[in-house]
Amino acid sequence: MNEPKGKVCHYSEVPAEVFGDEAPGVTIRWVIDEEKDGAPTYALRVIEVASGGHTPDHTHPFEHENFIMEGKGRVQIDGKWFEVGPGDVVFVPPGSQHTYVNAGDKPFKFLCGIPVSRLRPKS
Amino acid sequence: MNEPKGKVCHYSEVPAEVFGDEAPGVTIRWVIDEEKDGAPTYALRVIEVASGGHTPDHTHPFEHENFIMEGKGRVQIDGKWFEVGPGDVVFVPPGSQHTYVNAGDKPFKFLCGIPVSRLRPKS
Repeated sequence: MNEPKGKVCHYSEVPAEVFGDEAPGVTIRWVIDEEKDGAPTYALRVIEVASGGHTPDHTHPFEHENFIMEGKGRVQIDGKWFEVGPGDVVFVPPGSQHTYVNAGDKPFKFLCGIPVSRLRPKS
Repeated sequence: MNEPKGKVCHYSEVPAEVFGDEAPGVTIRWVIDEEKDGAPTYALRVIEVASGGHTPDHTHPFEHENFIMEGKGRVQIDGKWFEVGPGDVVFVPPGSQHTYVNAGDKPFKFLCGIPVSRLRPKS
């Protein structure tokens, strides 16, 4: 981990990485991260889901804290579905099953924070 | 702290609290918090600075992770100033001096994450 240094940039300046087959049409940008930026507590990511795309339906022992930036989506938390749009806040507690689906014809973009690795429960 | 529960809401549904004299024109909404929501790692707040307003020029031993939602602002980190607008990401490392100033004629709104109390270094 690097020593934390002040950082100001537009999210689009951070390269978008492709997720892969389990998340069709999804990219992730680690806009404030542990390695590069020395984030002490949590990493901030921008996730973009193309029209027709979705994240995997999965679970893990740490939380997500989301803010919807653009587009229309549907979010599932433990089997319950919610319609979401810009300005909505989503809290996915540790251990919850969850999915994010693009429900519109434009990119669905949201912020997603997760604890840094040393603070992620292992099970 | 409450048991973490899934939550979906618009940020504007969370009451805006007035900061006080040290932060003229500033309100804060704790959109995902430790007490109410059981956030395990960090709290997410929406901060709104009215035209002409600013946050205090101060320092504390924990970081801020910001995402600019709306408006035009200027952010100071350890004496260096940055112009910011929607989509910009700001990382204020632990122990840095910092201020957020509204530099436009509309509200300047940004997300601001901080570690929960048990993870905040004391000095």
